Amino acid sequence: MSAQGESVAGLGKARVEALTDGIFGAVMTILGLSLTIPYITGPPIQPLPPPENIIVGVLVYALSFVTVAVFWVAHHIAFYYIRRTDRTLIWLNNLLLLFVGLLPLTTALIGHHEIVQLTVVAYGFNLLAVQLSLYGTYWYATLHHHLVDADLDEALIRLGRRRMLLGPCLSGAAILISFVHPILSLGVYMLFPILYILPGRIDVFWRRQELR
Amino acid sequence: MSAQGESVAGLGKARVEALTDGIFGAVMTILGLSLTIPYITGPPIQPLPPPENIIVGVLVYALSFVTVAVFWVAHHIAFYYIRRTDRTLIWLNNLLLLFVGLLPLTTALIGHHEIVQLTVVAYGFNLLAVQLSLYGTYWYATLHHHLVDADLDEALIRLGRRRMLLGPCLSGAAILISFVHPILSLGVYMLFPILYILPGRIDVFWRRQELR
Amino acid sequence: MSAQGESVAGLGKARVEALTDGIFGAVMTILGLSLTIPYITGPPIQPLPPPENIIVGVLVYALSFVTVAVFWVAHHIAFYYIRRTDRTLIWLNNLLLLFVGLLPLTTALIGHHEIVQLTVVAYGFNLLAVQLSLYGTYWYATLHHHLVDADLDEALIRLGRRRMLLGPCLSGAAILISFVHPILSLGVYMLFPILYILPGRIDVFWRRQELR
Amino acid sequence: MSAQGESVAGLGKARVEALTDGIFGAVMTILGLSLTIPYITGPPIQPLPPPENIIVGVLVYALSFVTVAVFWVAHHIAFYYIRRTDRTLIWLNNLLLLFVGLLPLTTALIGHHEIVQLTVVAYGFNLLAVQLSLYGTYWYATLHHHLVDADLDEALIRLGRRRMLLGPCLSGAAILISFVHPILSLGVYMLFPILYILPGRIDVFWRRQELR
Repeated sequence: MSAQGESVAGLGKARVEALTDGIFGAVMTILGLSLTIPYITGPPIQPLPPPENIIVGVLVYALSFVTVAVFWVAHHIAFYYIRRTDRTLIWLNNLLLLFVGLLPLTTALIGHHEIVQLTVVAYGFNLLAVQLSLYGTYWYATLHHHLVDADLDEALIRLGRRRMLLGPCLSGAAILISFVHPILSLGVYMLFPILYILPGRIDVFWRRQELR
Repeated sequence: MSAQGESVAGLGKARVEALTDGIFGAVMTILGLSLTIPYITGPPIQPLPPPENIIVGVLVYALSFVTVAVFWVAHHIAFYYIRRTDRTLIWLNNLLLLFVGLLPLTTALIGHHEIVQLTVVAYGFNLLAVQLSLYGTYWYATLHHHLVDADLDEALIRLGRRRMLLGPCLSGAAILISFVHPILSLGVYMLFPILYILPGRIDVFWRRQELR
Repeated sequence: MSAQGESVAGLGKARVEALTDGIFGAVMTILGLSLTIPYITGPPIQPLPPPENIIVGVLVYALSFVTVAVFWVAHHIAFYYIRRTDRTLIWLNNLLLLFVGLLPLTTALIGHHEIVQLTVVAYGFNLLAVQLSLYGTYWYATLHHHLVDADLDEALIRLGRRRMLLGPCLSGAAILISFVHPILSLGVYMLFPILYILPGRIDVFWRRQELR
Repeated sequence: MSAQGESVAGLGKARVEALTDGIFGAVMTILGLSLTIPYITGPPIQPLPPPENIIVGVLVYALSFVTVAVFWVAHHIAFYYIRRTDRTLIWLNNLLLLFVGLLPLTTALIGHHEIVQLTVVAYGFNLLAVQLSLYGTYWYATLHHHLVDADLDEALIRLGRRRMLLGPCLSGAAILISFVHPILSLGVYMLFPILYILPGRIDVFWRRQELR
């Protein structure tokens, strides 16, 4: 969206962000739509479902919505520092979007079936794929300050990379833990958004910028 | 969308607005889609439904569309004054989007079932959650002129906050009134968009700006 | 999207355009989705439908897609000249979006039922509502050069208004003609996009601008 | 999205890009949604489908997602060089979007039915229509440097056109090959994204720009 992104060399980042925001927005809306569809495809006047069913559905929706939002915030911050794009970056980002587009499926597999190891592991690998492609995008862009400002603080780049590696570790742990008991893995998935919503050391860089 | 938002300190607001517009647009389209789905999932040639069914459906759609549009306009105005974002503001906004994404569900619960207190109260709490997270976003951004221009008129901030508090009061009233009779609460929900579409005292600030 | 829109007095037009593009894009995609849904909700491997069914579906899709696209182009051109927005303009635009969101329903009513006067008239009134709210938006914005540049050519404003009035005349004619025979009205609906895709006298103003 | 696009003569390209990104994003999300819909429309707790069914579905999704992404990247690059739009360019682009909106249908026809020549040919003609309208858009915009910068390198324009013609050749070949055996055509469809993801000679122009 920034006019700046267009004036620097290479292709602008504006449209990559626009497509990304469009797909994230659609995926987040679809997570809610999956709660609504049983009501709008059924007969005009239906018997009310048991309230506890609705509440469980809303909680699953809230957890998956917040998980996708964590990825969006990470993308937003990573692209804040990215100044230009090239074909490789665009395709790393497309890979990320491909895996984000699978999240409604793996979420529905957990939400609409008995909790068995298979569905828990599928969700874990989906998270892992999103996290690794996001890490790859950031890693590629910051390599030799390739697609970011030449004077971008090296410490900030390292901090960002370390923060982004926490996610794949959690997903890997959840996949391993599912061999003990699938329900335990769900606990790890709930931990994930909580850890990332809390402000981290990287936020200090924004505040420092404000003081300038 | 504004190039300005990128140049000030902190993260820009452009992408937060883009995600918000994407989710609001998708939710508003889905409210209409819920009317269409019975026709496109059925057999190729169907008997025509009774016209009064279609008319009631269209009226429910119009009311819920306008209600969501009221929130969008409020978000648009609030973010017009917001200059930068931080992690807390982004997550307050994500919370708002999470509750907006529930509106098609609570709307469908009212539209596709007998009007009982439970569905009316669920819709009321959904409205309340959207309104309070919107208020929280604006309150946080304007606290000590945290994320708005330092010289933003204090009177405008107070006026905006007061205007935003009317909504939660109405939703709270609708929830309480449902204990008398659920149908009465529907009347309050209809009152809500009407009150907010009318220009308020806050519009004077825009016109004043124009004269400068 | 233009940074300019933000710097002038009044609220910017960028987000109004973003919401509008989001809803138009979603509605245009949904018109195509309605062809696909029978295939993706059915069993994994289905018997192939008769090819002529698919071809008729694609033609109805193409016509309705192009009709919605005509409205989008008209909105695009109208907002090109609009410099700022106020509450009234935003709500006129929201009204337009509300009626655009009904187009998949009225299209499905024609496409999935026998062609009877009722469905043809419903589509006609939907078109009329979109056209009149679009005209109202443009009329309000250009009234006394209210929300457009003060030196915007009066001839261009009049030309734009006249061009926009052709649509409601066609829809009104189609509604009246349906009393003779509903099939004849369909012919008028097909005429509508053809007339508007052709370049008009208003395009001269763009070319003139280019020569400057 | 670029503020630049607004300031040059003719209509800006920002909103054409915004509508395009919205429709591409929606179509790409819908390709994933078609995997999810069977799970969210069914009963709350369902028997788990055989894992190999899910894996095949995910692979078809990945191929079709990447194919649509190839078109988006091509559009992104083509519009990077386009400076202004006129009515003809907008309608060439709308034609492109119309055919993009058909891709979920032709993909579902292949994915949910036995592989017969008819479905393979339908997909081939859909690809061909997208490719030719994309080529037409670029050809029209660069004709006599009509809608691009006057000093845009003639070699780059020719290189872009030649690269864009590879696609229609592949689709034409796939259609012809289907007369030998439909399965062979699927191989050509898989080749298409692979060929376009690889960096081409046109990328040199971006890098050269960076060195300036």
